[in-house]
This record gives sequence, structure tokens and C-alpha cells, in this order.
Amino acid sequence: MLAPSLPELIALRGGLGAVPGVKLAGVHAGIKPRKRDLALITFDQPQSCAAIVTTNEIKAAPLLVTAEHLAKAGTMRALVCNSGCANACTGERGERDARATARQAAALLGITPAEVVVASTGVIGVPLPIDRVQRGLERAASQLDEGGKAASDAAEAIMTTDRVPKLAAYAFYHGNRKHVVAGIAKGSGMIAPNMATMLAFIATDYPLSRTALAQLLAEASDESFNMISVDGDMSTNDAVYAFAPVAPAGDAPDPCAQALRAVCLDLARAMVADGEGTTKTLEVRVTEAVDVAQARSIARSIVNSNLVKTALYGEDPNWGRIIAAAGAARAKLDPLRWSLYVNHKAWVGEGAIELLSEAEAHRELEPSSVGVELRLGLGVAEATAWGCDLSRDYVRINASYRT
Amino acid sequence: MLAPSLPELIALRGGLGAVPGVKLAGVHAGIKPRKRDLALITFDQPQSCAAIVTTNEIKAAPLLVTAEHLAKAGTMRALVCNSGCANACTGERGERDARATARQAAALLGITPAEVVVASTGVIGVPLPIDRVQRGLERAASQLDEGGKAASDAAEAIMTTDRVPKLAAYAFYHGNRKHVVAGIAKGSGMIAPNMATMLAFIATDYPLSRTALAQLLAEASDESFNMISVDGDMSTNDAVYAFAPVAPAGDAPDPCAQALRAVCLDLARAMVADGEGTTKTLEVRVTEAVDVAQARSIARSIVNSNLVKTALYGEDPNWGRIIAAAGAARAKLDPLRWSLYVNHKAWVGEGAIELLSEAEAHRELEPSSVGVELRLGLGVAEATAWGCDLSRDYVRINASYRT
Repeated sequence: MLAPSLPELIALRGGLGAVPGVKLAGVHAGIKPRKRDLALITFDQPQSCAAIVTTNEIKAAPLLVTAEHLAKAGTMRALVCNSGCANACTGERGERDARATARQAAALLGITPAEVVVASTGVIGVPLPIDRVQRGLERAASQLDEGGKAASDAAEAIMTTDRVPKLAAYAFYHGNRKHVVAGIAKGSGMIAPNMATMLAFIATDYPLSRTALAQLLAEASDESFNMISVDGDMSTNDAVYAFAPVAPAGDAPDPCAQALRAVCLDLARAMVADGEGTTKTLEVRVTEAVDVAQARSIARSIVNSNLVKTALYGEDPNWGRIIAAAGAARAKLDPLRWSLYVNHKAWVGEGAIELLSEAEAHRELEPSSVGVELRLGLGVAEATAWGCDLSRDYVRINASYRT
Repeated sequence: MLAPSLPELIALRGGLGAVPGVKLAGVHAGIKPRKRDLALITFDQPQSCAAIVTTNEIKAAPLLVTAEHLAKAGTMRALVCNSGCANACTGERGERDARATARQAAALLGITPAEVVVASTGVIGVPLPIDRVQRGLERAASQLDEGGKAASDAAEAIMTTDRVPKLAAYAFYHGNRKHVVAGIAKGSGMIAPNMATMLAFIATDYPLSRTALAQLLAEASDESFNMISVDGDMSTNDAVYAFAPVAPAGDAPDPCAQALRAVCLDLARAMVADGEGTTKTLEVRVTEAVDVAQARSIARSIVNSNLVKTALYGEDPNWGRIIAAAGAARAKLDPLRWSLYVNHKAWVGEGAIELLSEAEAHRELEPSSVGVELRLGLGVAEATAWGCDLSRDYVRINASYRT
């Protein structure tokens, strides 16, 4: 402890604005009444691009158009994202609008349409007000800038019911050179099982091949975005896009992978903390599992249970709901071997023996952030999932989302 | 239309009290502060018994004990069910308590413990107050009676957050003889994905083999209880038990199967209508499906979406949420061929064309019961699921369930 090791990662401010070669803008195009609603992100160099998109069978038009672009162009140069309208369930017109947006961005930036990623979030089933998008896009192109302010504007412009913009950035050293991985995201609250859209746009100045980037992104998402949302129950518009300057095939160095994981974790946790109507967040660690798949499945089942969420909101130490949710995952839990901890205190021992009094357990649920650990007593694997409570405000917000 | 065909089924009042040979009681044993909390059901003749129980890996003690009894005894003669305590996650003591209950019922009734079905519902993780259960059981045995009042008392005694007791009964003719199928149930509201306990106890005086009864019950449950709850996401205590006088192997006559289906449907719909904090019910028909499995999967995904539920509560005609929930089922929906109806009016046509104005669609969501039909445009199979809205009261009730 005399010579503390240098931290491998350095947390930075400014989100995507901290990545050299990235310019951004976030403007009010008029899709929403007042707030910023159109973001433009550009890259000085051609980018490898990796995508993770929704498994919902109803895919929004921009997802379909971007998938074509990714298949066609080897590399990408820009991303346009609007909020206020999901451009989902909008038929042929939706695809035309998404293509027109990419075409216009390409013209403004002097690149080809297939080098543009398009994304949307907001109400489903309403056509994109394309003239407003186009005027906004012109303005955004004229305001492109580096740095934290531009990134914050862009992060604001992709918000829907989010209360705060979400940015994350980490620097790492490889050899003697410093590099940055950063991102912005939107997504609010009870992502699953409720299918609110989640978007994240991530970039690094460390050059990577598309294959290497895709591999890194898949691993990082499994530990972060997929631990707040359940596969197979995603919205029509969910997408994570990651960008890196083009490089030949080859593995990413470990600090780069770590930085990407840190960015994804920060963004995922920010989404949970910004849950619609959320008053508390919940971190569920499942430990002593047979394998990671079992731990993940049980952890997700717990954070997704409405009964666990409402008990957390009411600070009701109803641990039976946690165990019932774990059992519902059907991941081969042993009903006789589990034990439960709350904020690192033993709560319920093996054989369902209560170790904290009702009053003690209640007190542990009072903080705005609650940690629960479920030890399965079966092995050494573990996983963590993040969730939030279900409040009356959640209902208020979602009962009148469009009005 | 000159000679209307006689109805095959005759709806009766009185639930299980309408079945000849069934006696019931519902008493206040003191597990709950004031209300009835212990039900006893007995049968004059030995019964074939079929069970459908939770797939949750955490199974309440009475489920485990009853499973042993069903494996051991060929036939059953009585059922004891308490509310106010789930006797789940109660370890060895829980099983001892469930066995003691069965033993005492057997002694009081002059039968063997293995002829007794035991069931519980209420808070998880709290031991059964066995002395109160035993005093209550004595009283119940002394009050056993036929008829509607006794059935209503028993139905009340198994309620938790239910607002009304749930009873159903239908008569049918086979040959010249009249028979009855009837049931009582408890279960309130957002059964899935929230794992509130659902219990249903069904009986008929039509003699059936255990195999025939099990087959009938499985088919009827798939169309009713399983269309308000999703397999694999069930509570620790969910159970449906059906009873019929013992008969040799042989198929049930069609009117008997119809009556059982009608009883299960009535009870399932009553649970939905009695949802915790419910202000509206939703019936989702998925038609023009490739097969029943596809139709069921999509219909259940829609009624289980929190976003659909909150939109219904807010009377927000946000049809995109319905389609997004359908797509999330990953049941091979064709995104270009579906159309949507509300209360039999065309709402959204193929290609996502809105056919009702916002105001018109809003009006269709105002009644306390809303019907939606999603036509998939793929085949001729169909299925119906039932759900309810998600209100602020749901949160209030579940945030302080134990206090």
C-alpha cells in the first residue's frame, strides 16, 4: 500500500466531446415543442462501426435503413438522431424519411448517405415531421463543435422522458499514448419489461477493426445494457452504436476493453437512476452461482419484478418477493441453499432464517440506493443487475406520455 | 332462428355450493386481523384430483406436501386453504405445519391425511400461526354446509387483496341427467408478470378418472388461467386443483368439458376484473395467426406490457405500444401485414395507416372494459388474453402490502 498502483482508467468529463476527432451538435428542430430534439455526431476519420439493435420484430425505420448502410458501406462518418418521434410503425413513408435524413446529412457533410447512421426515439406510429428535421439538420451541421458543451447538447437532444443527459468518458494509456472511450445515451427507467427505448452512442480514438469493436461491444453490453434490460423484450428503437477509427484486424488492448466496459456501465446505471418516477435504485448481485448465465438470469428476474419494485418504493422489507422473483427465473436455484444480504448485512440465512428484524430491514431500504446480494450456495460465478423502484409517478408519467 | 337450440350450459349461482356432495365452510381463524381466512372443502365421495401448480422453483410448503399426498393417495376427500400467510420460504417448519394441518383435517373428518389437499396464500417468509389454524379448522369442520352461502364464505376465506369473492358454476345435461361443474378462486390483478398468487378449486359431480380430469383441466387452463398469467413467471403458491367422483378410465363428454372451460374462463376473468387498483379491463384477441401458440404468445405479451397497461389507465390511444409489445413476443409477426381493431372498429390498417382519429380512438378507451383485436394476416388461428390497467392505486397497494 506504500506505492499505490496507477489507476488504469482515468474518468473524464464531457462524454463524446472528450474523444479527439469527434464533433457534435444538439439543436431544437421543432419535433418537440421546446427542447433540443436533433443530434448530429461526425467523425474526422472513417470509422469501424459495431451495432447492437433490438430483437423486437417491429423495428423502427431508422434501424432498418442503418442496417442497410452498415451492410453496404465499409465505414461510417456520421450519426443523426432525433427525439420526439420514433419513426416506428410508419410504413414506407418512415423508411423514405429515414433515407432522406441520411441523404441530407451526407450532402451537408460531403460524405455518402451509406456512411450515415440514423436513429430515432419518441412516440411510435407518428410520421417524422421531415421538413422540421431537415431545417434542424442544416442548423446542426453549421454548429458542429468539439468538447463537452457540444456533447452535452447532443445528449440532451436525444432525451425523451429522461431528466438528465447521460455522458461518460474514460481515458486509458496504451504504450505511452493516451486514448479515450466515451459515450452518450438516453433511456429512462423501467427499460424492461416495459420497452422504453434505450439508445447509446459510443466512440473511441483507439483504432479498431469492425470485428474487434463488435466483440468488445458485445461483451461490454452483456454486463451493462443487458443487465438493465432483458433480451427479447426490447423496444422498437433500441440500439447501441460504437465507433472507432478503422484499423486492420487485431485484438483490442485490455485497457481499451476496460474503458469501454466502464463507459457502458456508467451509461446503463445512469439510465436506471433516471428511471421514470424513480425514487430509489436497486443493485442486485447474484453470487455463488453455477455459471454466469444462471447468475444473470436470476439477477434480471429480480430487478424486473413489479412486486419487488413496488416493495422497494414502499420500503417494505418483503424479502419473499425477491426470492419468488428469483425462483420464477427457472434457472435451477436450490430452494434450501440460498441466503440474502442487504447493503452487505446478512438479511435471511440458509433455510429462510430471518437475521434482521423487520425494523432493521426496513431501515436498510430507506437510502436512495439499495444493494441486495443473493448468494445461491452453488458455485463461484456472479453477475449484477440494476433496477429501480416502481412509483406512483411512473404510472402518472406513462398514463399520459403523449399528452 | 325459429327454433332456438337449447343452451348446452346453464349458468348457476353458488359456485362450489352448487355441486351435489360438496360441503364447505369459511371461518375467521385469526391469521388475518378481522376477515375470514380459513376455508375447508369436503367431498362425500372419494375424488379423482388433478393439479396444475406453479413452475416457480421456490414452491410453498403446502404445494410440496399436497404433491406427496397426490402421489400417495389414489383419491382425495378434502381441501384446506388459509389466506394471510403463504407458508412459503418457511423451511422445514413450513412443511411440518402443512402436514399438521392435513393431519388435523383428516382426524376431524375421519379420513387419512394423504386424502387432504392443503393450500395457502398471503405473505411469503412468515411461519403459519399453526395454533390459530388449528382452532379455526375445528370451527370450520363444525360449520360445514352445502349451498351458496357456505361456498361464498369459503371463497371469501381464500381472498388476499381481492375485493370480491370469485365463484362460478355451470350445469350441463348428459343423457337425461343434470350435472354441475363449479369453482371458487382467488387472485387479484396483475397476476403476471407480478407473481401474485392465483388459486382455483374446481369440482364436478360428473365422475371422471384422474387421467380424464387432468386432460380436461390442462386444456381449460391453457385457455383461461394461462391467458392471464405467463408460464414460468408464477408465484410460489399458484395452484389449480380439480375434483371429480372417481370413475374408470374414459373420456369426458363434450358438455362436461365445455362446462369446465366456462368455469375456468369465468374465474380467470373475475381475477382480471378484480385487479389491484384496476379501473379498466382489457380483452386482447389475436386472430389470423399461423397457429394457436403464436396467437397466445402475442396476446399475452400485449396484456402483460406495463406500457400498454398505463396507456389504458390514461385512456391514451397509443397503439404503438400495443404493436411494440406484440413484436417483443418474437412469435414471427409480419410487420407489414397486421391490422388493429378496438371495440370492433378498425383502428390501424395494414401498413400502419391510422383509421380512427386520436379523439375517436380515445373515446373507445373510455369504457371500463376495452376490447382490442390484432389481426396478424397470416392464418386462421386465434387466442384471447385478458388483462387490466396499471393504476397509481396498484402501486399504493403493493408498496405497503404488509403494513
